[in-house]
Amino acid sequence: MVNEGESGRFEVEVEGWAAKDESGILSPFNFTRRKTGSHDVTFKVAYCGICHSDLHQIRNDWKTSQYPMVPGHEIVGTVIEVGSQVKNFAVGDRVGVGCMVWSCQQCDSCSKDHEQYCEKVVWTYNGIYVDGSPTLGGYSSLMVCDHRFVVKIPECLPFDAAAPLLCAGITVYSPMKYFQMTEPGKSLGVVGLGGLGHMAVKFGKAFGLKVTVISTSPQKEKEAREHLGADNFLISKDQKQMLEAARSLDYIIDTVSADHPLHPIINLLKVNGKLVVVGMPEKPISFHPATVIFGRRFVGGSMIGGVKETQEMLDFCAEHNISCVIESIPMDYVNTAMQRLEKGDVKYRFVIDVTGSFSSPKAN
Amino acid sequence: MVNEGESGRFEVEVEGWAAKDESGILSPFNFTRRKTGSHDVTFKVAYCGICHSDLHQIRNDWKTSQYPMVPGHEIVGTVIEVGSQVKNFAVGDRVGVGCMVWSCQQCDSCSKDHEQYCEKVVWTYNGIYVDGSPTLGGYSSLMVCDHRFVVKIPECLPFDAAAPLLCAGITVYSPMKYFQMTEPGKSLGVVGLGGLGHMAVKFGKAFGLKVTVISTSPQKEKEAREHLGADNFLISKDQKQMLEAARSLDYIIDTVSADHPLHPIINLLKVNGKLVVVGMPEKPISFHPATVIFGRRFVGGSMIGGVKETQEMLDFCAEHNISCVIESIPMDYVNTAMQRLEKGDVKYRFVIDVTGSFSSPKAN
Repeated sequence: MVNEGESGRFEVEVEGWAAKDESGILSPFNFTRRKTGSHDVTFKVAYCGICHSDLHQIRNDWKTSQYPMVPGHEIVGTVIEVGSQVKNFAVGDRVGVGCMVWSCQQCDSCSKDHEQYCEKVVWTYNGIYVDGSPTLGGYSSLMVCDHRFVVKIPECLPFDAAAPLLCAGITVYSPMKYFQMTEPGKSLGVVGLGGLGHMAVKFGKAFGLKVTVISTSPQKEKEAREHLGADNFLISKDQKQMLEAARSLDYIIDTVSADHPLHPIINLLKVNGKLVVVGMPEKPISFHPATVIFGRRFVGGSMIGGVKETQEMLDFCAEHNISCVIESIPMDYVNTAMQRLEKGDVKYRFVIDVTGSFSSPKAN
Repeated sequence: MVNEGESGRFEVEVEGWAAKDESGILSPFNFTRRKTGSHDVTFKVAYCGICHSDLHQIRNDWKTSQYPMVPGHEIVGTVIEVGSQVKNFAVGDRVGVGCMVWSCQQCDSCSKDHEQYCEKVVWTYNGIYVDGSPTLGGYSSLMVCDHRFVVKIPECLPFDAAAPLLCAGITVYSPMKYFQMTEPGKSLGVVGLGGLGHMAVKFGKAFGLKVTVISTSPQKEKEAREHLGADNFLISKDQKQMLEAARSLDYIIDTVSADHPLHPIINLLKVNGKLVVVGMPEKPISFHPATVIFGRRFVGGSMIGGVKETQEMLDFCAEHNISCVIESIPMDYVNTAMQRLEKGDVKYRFVIDVTGSFSSPKAN
């Protein structure tokens, strides 16, 4: 059903779930989105992944939260309408939207297809869109998004297990490509075996790397080796094991968001080794300069990836039969899922079955 | 005069100055070196630079010092004898030796001409040579060195001002090349304007970069701009100035060995910016992961450079008319020089006039 909104724009009614305050409790929330604009793609949301940052945001951990907040930036669905200027998408296409819905398209970062580093980037939720409205995410029945931030989900990828590729997947794929951590035969360490970490293992294997998982949890070894194909497993709290593995890895991706000492991790790197952090602990990173000087190592950071690179990753996933290991849940399980996520009790990503949780969208 | 030593090897008498204990006071010290071996180059030392690490080593700051210690690893001189297997050097050649006198030649680092990262590397002084003898450095009249660690000093470079290129020069040149911080038109920040820093400014200008000096000392601005050709100058303790310059630099080389906060420095980097630390503060480096994640920056380290790269740097210096700004001193001024070095009272490197300080070497 289409209404003319207060601003004079036509709007579309959408069903969703929102956090209303810092309690972070999510509950049903109906709202409106803009009607498909000339550059927009409108799609019925099929699935939406639950990212760990959703948990931080609904609870205002980063002190930037605006309520009501509809989270979700791992969104896939089927196109039901495209704007007059949209040539590259059609009704019926399987599409996705990740963490961004707008960027300036003029700055140096945008010109290089690195929209994620645009200073004016608008995030998919908890942002302010260019029309002044708050952005609302994928825990909802319908998305309307500028086509430049929409990607195609290859037919061969399962829809639900593809959703988390849009954040968890690209967050580890992008630095591996950018920092050239893909040379076949080289060794990759993956610190933390969660949503991001398990994807890093999969990409590492697909690139032809020898993958070592580094985790605090010994019980993850069997799973890492047998189901994800990891070649080695190190228990990060076992000092002897960590010292014996010193100077053995070419690359490391550290996906852990909890505070942890970085020195023993850097110490695993060979000469010229590269460490990229993608998790965001609260405390500062700290290491002695000698750790990087004796061995010409570096410690870099990276955040998601650009739209073009996200499409490239999806195509790579299709080619190599890669998707996320997920637990599919109905929307009304989301508060329980958040509690379990907080305890690390998920292998490896919750994905909300949105279509199955709502009635059909009412956009004509 | 050549004697047969206790080990049965012929040895050559050498005049030098050594530290005898942790007081770090240097005084005359006569010793012997091996006679020119089949792979050796023997040269009369003309000049030797005083590196800040010499000061640390004579005082046992790093708890690895062996006495008597003859410091010096920025050594230039004229060849007086070459071994039977040495084809690439001849008597009369102007040569130099930097921080290394031996490496295994078999490991991955050696095979890539990165001998400085060989785990068995033997440093020019305060090391143990493969024959079991302690290595003694360039504060001495004569050097005997395996030809693989000897470089040629181009004729057009002044001998005295070339000496510090062998440590101060290569320490900043190598990371600029390795980490690809040389694209003309890009901007380089140089933190600290001492022996290393002033060389980084010169190399930066030669590579066609826009160079910003970042220093605690406002009085260095005039010198930096007028004599070294720096384009900009930032006072690191001026928070306002530092914040205004946020996200303005492509590359930064941090040469400062004193403890200092790294966050304001990293903050100067643009997206994709690169920071390399070559100084070695005592305290750990510390910065929030967001500092590198939002902007895909990295913090790397680097240590001197390989022999081949050192030769490349010397040839680059010859081509671009680059040498160090030095203050030449006689050997018996060295203790005063160390005191002044400790206070940062030198522009920018002390170089000992070795030839002028000793009688002629007595090699056969």
